Amino acid sequence: MTPAEGGPTADARAAGLRKLLLDEGLDALIATSEAGIAYLSGFHGLQLERLFAVVVRPEGGALVVPRLDEESARAAPTELERVVYDPTSDGLPALLGVLDGARRVGVEEAHLSFARARGLMDAGLELVAAGELTMRLRAPKDAEEVELITSACRLVEEALEEMFGRLRPGDVERVVNAEVEHHLRRAGATEVHPLILFGPNAARPHAEPGDRVLHPGDVVCADVSARLGGYWGDLTRCGTVGPASDWSRDAWGVVRDAQAAAIAAALAGAEARAVDAAQRRVIEAVPRLGSCLHGAGHAIGLEVHEPPFLVPASDARLAEGTVLTIEPGIYREGVGGIRLEDDVLVGEREPRVLSRLPLELREVPVEGTNA
Amino acid sequence: MTPAEGGPTADARAAGLRKLLLDEGLDALIATSEAGIAYLSGFHGLQLERLFAVVVRPEGGALVVPRLDEESARAAPTELERVVYDPTSDGLPALLGVLDGARRVGVEEAHLSFARARGLMDAGLELVAAGELTMRLRAPKDAEEVELITSACRLVEEALEEMFGRLRPGDVERVVNAEVEHHLRRAGATEVHPLILFGPNAARPHAEPGDRVLHPGDVVCADVSARLGGYWGDLTRCGTVGPASDWSRDAWGVVRDAQAAAIAAALAGAEARAVDAAQRRVIEAVPRLGSCLHGAGHAIGLEVHEPPFLVPASDARLAEGTVLTIEPGIYREGVGGIRLEDDVLVGEREPRVLSRLPLELREVPVEGTNA
Repeated sequence: MTPAEGGPTADARAAGLRKLLLDEGLDALIATSEAGIAYLSGFHGLQLERLFAVVVRPEGGALVVPRLDEESARAAPTELERVVYDPTSDGLPALLGVLDGARRVGVEEAHLSFARARGLMDAGLELVAAGELTMRLRAPKDAEEVELITSACRLVEEALEEMFGRLRPGDVERVVNAEVEHHLRRAGATEVHPLILFGPNAARPHAEPGDRVLHPGDVVCADVSARLGGYWGDLTRCGTVGPASDWSRDAWGVVRDAQAAAIAAALAGAEARAVDAAQRRVIEAVPRLGSCLHGAGHAIGLEVHEPPFLVPASDARLAEGTVLTIEPGIYREGVGGIRLEDDVLVGEREPRVLSRLPLELREVPVEGTNA
Repeated sequence: MTPAEGGPTADARAAGLRKLLLDEGLDALIATSEAGIAYLSGFHGLQLERLFAVVVRPEGGALVVPRLDEESARAAPTELERVVYDPTSDGLPALLGVLDGARRVGVEEAHLSFARARGLMDAGLELVAAGELTMRLRAPKDAEEVELITSACRLVEEALEEMFGRLRPGDVERVVNAEVEHHLRRAGATEVHPLILFGPNAARPHAEPGDRVLHPGDVVCADVSARLGGYWGDLTRCGTVGPASDWSRDAWGVVRDAQAAAIAAALAGAEARAVDAAQRRVIEAVPRLGSCLHGAGHAIGLEVHEPPFLVPASDARLAEGTVLTIEPGIYREGVGGIRLEDDVLVGEREPRVLSRLPLELREVPVEGTNA
């Protein structure tokens, strides 16, 4: 089930936002991000360079779209007025029309472009950074959203299982990523980010999969995310080609412990940075194995990366119902990287791991090839 | 060959930008878009929510990246200084450090977020919309860039050929899109946007491929773009399942004529809107066939959609060496859509079509299935 099928859901969310507007003394909020628009209206559009927006005002509001998307905007499950602008316009006059009489307006400050912000300010509006306001609503997932994230996790789990089952020496990194993407897309994923890295490439968490051929002794770090029914699932599992080396085995054990520590810290009311500190403490205790290159994870939902980010610099606290990816890793230049990632629902009493694929370090057979 | 292998290229581009800075009285330019950064530094990063920037100043400049991307930033083919910030920072202090002493600073106004713009303005900088400045450099493609776009077109042509060759009644829209994506990814495409729509779905240029099964009598509108070696190719071809209906045949003929008229208008110095007017005139002359729902196309290069956009509202003129997609279409609700798209190099004397796949309306056999 997609959010677009959830009739009254979007309207209830817009109503929730209206209460926050009053609390914050805002005359309106403009959502311009794909996720913000989808959350408040159930409308999923292809933005490119064209302006799309949801405006929520204390009374009413509107979904603003270009003419090309009029039909799908009208089909969206929202009571918001539809305001459609023609190709001769950049959409700003239509947006300003909806904001008529407003003065103090919240915006998604990490998404709204400087050009559009300037257009709004030049028209006399005072813009207030209000990304946190919509995220306050979006962070706690309802039962349907948790179900959708869980379904996305199941799909990623299947794809990882299938990939590890087929993997053989001689396979090419880029092709393996393409196969996983294909599997996920056929199954209905609308966006997919496979990041499966071999051997020393896995030492760089953001390397680009390329022509690297899988060799006996390689570590395989497989980070796969997919969007299904509007919501993301994101998991990482690792393996070795042939028996694990001492380094792989030790690194995997430490990362598993770091992940368990971070998951245990993912409680409602906890500080985001405390979740990070829990994994960092474990990883940094064994510097001989490698470096801790990133935070413990981030929230996930309509976007694959949502705030709060589980990093030392965060001063956010975790809301009950938030879904987090918890993904510590150890990276050693020239050797490889081990990361374990699961999607975890923040509970009041205890966290709930939504993914269920075993954490085991997979052993890829050295015998046989797919060539 | 990727831009990252083109050694002195990025530095020559930064030098070209320095001249424009002086002309425009700017103390610096900040590029924050992936394409702007790649163009000026040869660095391709995975941005997500983290700050990446290239700063070009009249003397020198810097590539600003988070610690996680330090290694790949150091490997980029640029003489720019590398400035790396730690996970405890949002990167803004590092960026401001590089801008020390600057006052009037150009930014990519359609990319820079309001949050970051405000951070820069609060530090006393005057921000000037300068997207047009970098696009003035990026618009005319050099021989290597034209070669890269042509290679991307070849790959898309192969994928379209293969797809039309295999297509049979009973195929599912989503699966066909997944197959094309898989083909392109295996071949090394780093980003892929297939948009292959069946029957009435094709009446909406931005529909999402779904569960629609291909039936005899359907029109197929196949818009496929892929990024290879950093640059995009983008083509659209159409077919029918079984012999073309009168509508399909007539619509195809009109769109072919509209495309030819728009291509002929794609000359250096011409107005972008004149290219649009050329196709619009032909399409709108036969309203019985359907509607003209979008402009004639857009420039293409490091981004799949670059300015100038070939729309009535544009006041841009075409620079020699710009590569445009020319993609008129006719859309009839409940029936389907026909679009033809090629990538065209704007010449002084005549345009050069970089793609070479015949425009023909393909006939998919009604016999046989892939089931």
